[in-house]
Amino acid sequence: MNHAISNLQKRDLNHIWHPCSQMKDYENFPPIVIKSGKGIYLYDENGKEYIDAVSSWWVNLFGHANKQISTCLANQAFQLEHVIFANFTHEPAILLAEKLAKITPDGLTKVFFADNGSSAVEIALKMSFQYHQQKNKPNKRRFLAFTDAYHGETLGALSVGGVDLYSSIYQPLLLDTLRAQGPDCFRCPFNQNPTNCDTPCISSVEKILKKHHSEIAAVIIEPLIQAAAGMKMYPPSYLKQLRKLCTKYDVHFIADEVAVGFGRTGTMFACEQAEIMPDFMCLSKGITGGYMPLSVVLTTNEVYDAFYDDYESNKAFLHSHSYTGNPLACRIALEVLKIFKEGQYIEKIKQKSTYMKELASNIYNNHPNIGEYRQTGMVGAIELVKDKETKEPFSSEERIGYKIYQIALEKGLLLRPLGNVLYFMPPYVIETDEIEKMILTASESINEFFASYNDKGGKLI
Amino acid sequence: MNHAISNLQKRDLNHIWHPCSQMKDYENFPPIVIKSGKGIYLYDENGKEYIDAVSSWWVNLFGHANKQISTCLANQAFQLEHVIFANFTHEPAILLAEKLAKITPDGLTKVFFADNGSSAVEIALKMSFQYHQQKNKPNKRRFLAFTDAYHGETLGALSVGGVDLYSSIYQPLLLDTLRAQGPDCFRCPFNQNPTNCDTPCISSVEKILKKHHSEIAAVIIEPLIQAAAGMKMYPPSYLKQLRKLCTKYDVHFIADEVAVGFGRTGTMFACEQAEIMPDFMCLSKGITGGYMPLSVVLTTNEVYDAFYDDYESNKAFLHSHSYTGNPLACRIALEVLKIFKEGQYIEKIKQKSTYMKELASNIYNNHPNIGEYRQTGMVGAIELVKDKETKEPFSSEERIGYKIYQIALEKGLLLRPLGNVLYFMPPYVIETDEIEKMILTASESINEFFASYNDKGGKLI
Ligand SMILES: Cc1ncc(COP(=O)(O)O)c(C=O)c1O
Ligand SMILES: Cc1ncc(COP(=O)(O)O)c(C=O)c1O
Repeated sequence: MNHAISNLQKRDLNHIWHPCSQMKDYENFPPIVIKSGKGIYLYDENGKEYIDAVSSWWVNLFGHANKQISTCLANQAFQLEHVIFANFTHEPAILLAEKLAKITPDGLTKVFFADNGSSAVEIALKMSFQYHQQKNKPNKRRFLAFTDAYHGETLGALSVGGVDLYSSIYQPLLLDTLRAQGPDCFRCPFNQNPTNCDTPCISSVEKILKKHHSEIAAVIIEPLIQAAAGMKMYPPSYLKQLRKLCTKYDVHFIADEVAVGFGRTGTMFACEQAEIMPDFMCLSKGITGGYMPLSVVLTTNEVYDAFYDDYESNKAFLHSHSYTGNPLACRIALEVLKIFKEGQYIEKIKQKSTYMKELASNIYNNHPNIGEYRQTGMVGAIELVKDKETKEPFSSEERIGYKIYQIALEKGLLLRPLGNVLYFMPPYVIETDEIEKMILTASESINEFFASYNDKGGKLI
Repeated sequence: MNHAISNLQKRDLNHIWHPCSQMKDYENFPPIVIKSGKGIYLYDENGKEYIDAVSSWWVNLFGHANKQISTCLANQAFQLEHVIFANFTHEPAILLAEKLAKITPDGLTKVFFADNGSSAVEIALKMSFQYHQQKNKPNKRRFLAFTDAYHGETLGALSVGGVDLYSSIYQPLLLDTLRAQGPDCFRCPFNQNPTNCDTPCISSVEKILKKHHSEIAAVIIEPLIQAAAGMKMYPPSYLKQLRKLCTKYDVHFIADEVAVGFGRTGTMFACEQAEIMPDFMCLSKGITGGYMPLSVVLTTNEVYDAFYDDYESNKAFLHSHSYTGNPLACRIALEVLKIFKEGQYIEKIKQKSTYMKELASNIYNNHPNIGEYRQTGMVGAIELVKDKETKEPFSSEERIGYKIYQIALEKGLLLRPLGNVLYFMPPYVIETDEIEKMILTASESINEFFASYNDKGGKLI
């Protein structure tokens, strides 16, 4: 990047500490100042246009500054922006809870509100733990989670995460989580094909459940896609097996659909594809169409009933956040569900994702440094490898993904990578020609990078 | 409550699990359905009006459905509702960070964004811990906090909290926090008067720091008011002493101003009254005027610099939330600061709180069941006691506060208690006659309750 740094960029760097960033990187690569958004596009202070191919960290569904959503937000703001949610309620929360209970797997009837994905995960963990305590199973106080899992970064959520990059330095502050080997279809240790395998990799979690079930309150998993780990995808059959094991061993199943919920995987919720009902489902991100923080935890009557008693029993779930049940966010979430339905978006996602998959597979699958192009619903991922045969990865210090990201940004494509994985998770309003442009621009960026990289004998550029 | 339950109430109870609630209580006391708000008032589905004397869990500053704030929210929504905040930025965040750095204590220059108060606390804890790790002080991995502290309910935040009601059942999931006896001016063990004492109670924290400082990363405190514990107030001199001790023992000072920030204590931030600079300041709640979740952690260049290095050093602070730096929330927060300034609200708060204190003290201080009426800035608290002489509290099972709350609601006053403490924390737009009405209605409710309570020989009604 060799633009002169703008005044706003300078002012940003004076005071803002950006998330998930080594701020020193910003010296050479200052933050891009976005002025406005429209549909799948973001516009910076110089009027430059970017396709938001990552839906701004997987939150946007129906485009930026969506007129319909913004209008409904404004209307709600002039009527009731917020009200305390203990002993008080309001129509947007009531209608939203009804709708969510209806569209999520049968049996998920109760809705607990919070602000962000991490809080939703913390709530599910705390509820599960307390449930077992109140059911006279005091030893069930540990959680089981997967390698390469990501569930957020507050200490409870981080404790169940399995991506070392985020958690290793905090180890002394984290819970002693049991860790099963997660499914790894790209580098399958059983040499199976995910489209028709019988998930032998379930054995890892099965062994732990068998041995430790009496200490385990819940297992938490990202259904179908381990997103932050690099869009690692696995088949629904794995979830089916896991559900059976959880039931067998009296362990709660927490489905963290924060990233995959609301259509990303091609169905409204990923659990649908496995035809399972989790005991807890965490939702956030897309729930407000990418407008503002809101999260919910859905659970069953059985869980709810274990907390339902006379006040003096001290069995209540006392968790709260100041903005729990925020009417603005609930109102937007209702509008998002309306758009899904009226715009027949689940159908549209099927069509668009089919087109995306065909085109991308054709373009990427023969590239010598692309190990595979994989896709589930509207989430596509390009796995960059040093050696296509052995699937040897690039070392993380090479920052291959990061460098391609910078090239793509120059070309007007926002394609923030996860290590050696580039991915597409565009807003659902993306049109066929835009899908094409997104895929081709990514391809050009990759080719441009590797041309120079190979020129220099595989050295860093 | 003997109203027939409405259709919306029924639908609420079918699906919603409310925060900080024993849901069984809702059988006899169903949630009040709020339709709209205006200024200090909330209106329910029957048109009944309530004074929101608790600012909807301490978030509202300038009234419900405030035209100026709603207008600016709408404008931002039509321009840019959200954008990923890693490598990207926008004007509302830049201007907000600048303003916050300017109005908070000198030396707090860097701003990290998050969504809610709990997340802000988690971030401060994680940053402090990681700072010491990166400064080659690996033993500094514990936190020191106070009895009766409240810092939120995600597991990290809950670990530093000292209110058993929220944390005791989760003990096996919590960090091993060092706990100092917090200041307790109402039942001062040293029999001092808080207006002129030399804070002998600092000895508790001093002893722990002396003994354990080499293991302690940070001490966290709610400046001036331990809010959730029952609006327990203590003098600025305590914070001054604590700041000195932290500096002496190389321990970070985390000021959790989530509840007290933005004018509640009479100054913009509570730390101002002690003339101290904390190493971390957590802000949330009022930051958006009560509209939507947003939080920030402010810290120093010294802390920032300990994370600033080449990417390969792995020193970056990788924490993030999907909606970090949300433009809608930042834009509102800017408007809130504008209203503060243009409306000269710090001055207004001084006048209004003086009036409130005088009136309330006159009315409450002689009541046989009010141990004291205390006030700091715009936060007033009524401590109910069984015996005024001995300050013997009512047992929590009697739920005295809860019962008075129900009576007050009937009279159109929202006065949600904290155990045996009733409190006023109204929006700053409250007018003199409304302050009067609030205080008198609370007084009537208290009297009505005790008339019946005493009639029955101090039995539950
Ligand atoms: C699966 C999953 N769970 C939880 C979270 C945390 O959500 P938040 O960033 O809103 O705290 C994320 C965020 O990326 C996620 O992908
Ligand atoms: C002092 C303090 N810190 C933190 C929090 C937690 O904030 P939130 O409820 O937004 O998670 C609160 C909330 O009441 C608080 O009073």
